[in-house]
Amino acid sequence: MTRVAYVNGRYLPHHAAAVHIEDRGYQFADGVYEVVAVQGGRLVDGDGHLDRLDRSLGELRIAPPMTRRSLEAVMNEVIRRNRIDRGSIYLQMTRAVAARDHPFPRRGETQVVMTAKRVPPPSPSVADDGVKVITIPDIRWERCDIKTVALLANVLAKQQAREAGAYEAFLVDADGAVTEGSSTNAWIITKDGTVVTRPASNAILDGITRRRVIQLARAAGFKVEERSFTVGELKAAREVFLTSTTSYVTPVSQVDDTVIGNGKPGSLSLDLRARYIAFMERHAAA
Amino acid sequence: MTRVAYVNGRYLPHHAAAVHIEDRGYQFADGVYEVVAVQGGRLVDGDGHLDRLDRSLGELRIAPPMTRRSLEAVMNEVIRRNRIDRGSIYLQMTRAVAARDHPFPRRGETQVVMTAKRVPPPSPSVADDGVKVITIPDIRWERCDIKTVALLANVLAKQQAREAGAYEAFLVDADGAVTEGSSTNAWIITKDGTVVTRPASNAILDGITRRRVIQLARAAGFKVEERSFTVGELKAAREVFLTSTTSYVTPVSQVDDTVIGNGKPGSLSLDLRARYIAFMERHAAA
Repeated sequence: MTRVAYVNGRYLPHHAAAVHIEDRGYQFADGVYEVVAVQGGRLVDGDGHLDRLDRSLGELRIAPPMTRRSLEAVMNEVIRRNRIDRGSIYLQMTRAVAARDHPFPRRGETQVVMTAKRVPPPSPSVADDGVKVITIPDIRWERCDIKTVALLANVLAKQQAREAGAYEAFLVDADGAVTEGSSTNAWIITKDGTVVTRPASNAILDGITRRRVIQLARAAGFKVEERSFTVGELKAAREVFLTSTTSYVTPVSQVDDTVIGNGKPGSLSLDLRARYIAFMERHAAA
Repeated sequence: MTRVAYVNGRYLPHHAAAVHIEDRGYQFADGVYEVVAVQGGRLVDGDGHLDRLDRSLGELRIAPPMTRRSLEAVMNEVIRRNRIDRGSIYLQMTRAVAARDHPFPRRGETQVVMTAKRVPPPSPSVADDGVKVITIPDIRWERCDIKTVALLANVLAKQQAREAGAYEAFLVDADGAVTEGSSTNAWIITKDGTVVTRPASNAILDGITRRRVIQLARAAGFKVEERSFTVGELKAAREVFLTSTTSYVTPVSQVDDTVIGNGKPGSLSLDLRARYIAFMERHAAA
């Protein structure tokens, strides 16, 4: 089967899907994106992602290229043409194609690109072993609340993690508090069983999975606190986990050289992971 | 005449010049660029720009796609095919085309794009009137020394300047010191005639025009200090100017609501501007 990408109104073979060299996404990182999980051929938390997309566009004053209904129709068509049952869809919108100049161009249409891919079910080893995380300084800009394609700092952080044999890098602000991972939100569970994650602000991306896990945890009777926590608290935590659209809830068993708990995924993290996967499966069946 | 762009080994009509949607420049801002002035059909300070390009690539561990000699040959061919006498050439290199994933891909070739355009001689009004600048917080990441395409913060700053009726925004760090402009370096001349600009560090891009103006100013007998200066010093300065590849030396006559000097370009700034333009013209004739 040929993978199909959507580019500005056309469905194209993936290998032939291209954008102009003066697309402002290419020359200025002047664009935003979303990654949405697909389960049973349906968008998971689609409303949450598309609400956030609207907010990102609004913060950058990029014109929405179509109505929500039309956008959902295109996304569903991309899912259908790529025959995605379980997977993800990637959606990017950039300001325009225009002669290179920093200010917003006076003319030009918002550019839209989508791709979709199949993703296998989550590996059991993640739940069996947990993942390793490193901590490094957060050197990003001050508007991490906007989901832009200006991801170079995140790329460098993730690469540094991989070279350290880790799954993720948690980023640490000038006050010694964890902001988030390079492509995930960071969580701890304290000795008394409280689930803690940093509050939404300009310093982090307010993850859709983050919000869903807060809701699921509260519904399950967990105490959830949205507050900053330090690297010290992180390493002394009863449990640590991370969340994202593509990693769901992933237990963390080691932070830098510190083993968390007994070095195995914590029971509360695994409980939240199971609740999130159950949520996705209910969603697919709904 | 049809404008011609260079894309990965091919010379293409500008309108048809495209990159793949999974070019990491498009999805991650994982790339670098240079803008080089052309005078008399020749690169101005070409060695300085290409040395800096090498440094940017090195800091990001992006493989140089070709030798310096080959790169210069391509640049000269782009200039020739576009019949540029006075203008500029834009050069962008990105890490690879690869399935979207944050870490560096194991395979993939560095992607190369070039465009060139004619630019009219500098407007006399700049020298007659000077330009207005606003000051705003510097919200960028902590590696502004690398000339990456992750320019969204710069775009937003320039747009804010234009909406305030200004030519440029000077960015101000947490200590109240000016870092640089959104696409220029910032300079003051103190009451005693000392030329001051911020030292090169991770907080600014070390402009090629900046370096050239330091050299020309010293050769002309100016005292030049590379040190930080505050917004207060900026507004109290005898003269203010900015430099860049495309704006040369541009006098600043107003900062926010503060008129600099008598509101006309200062004589020392105009002297440095004349020296820079003379340097370019000598270069073209050489």
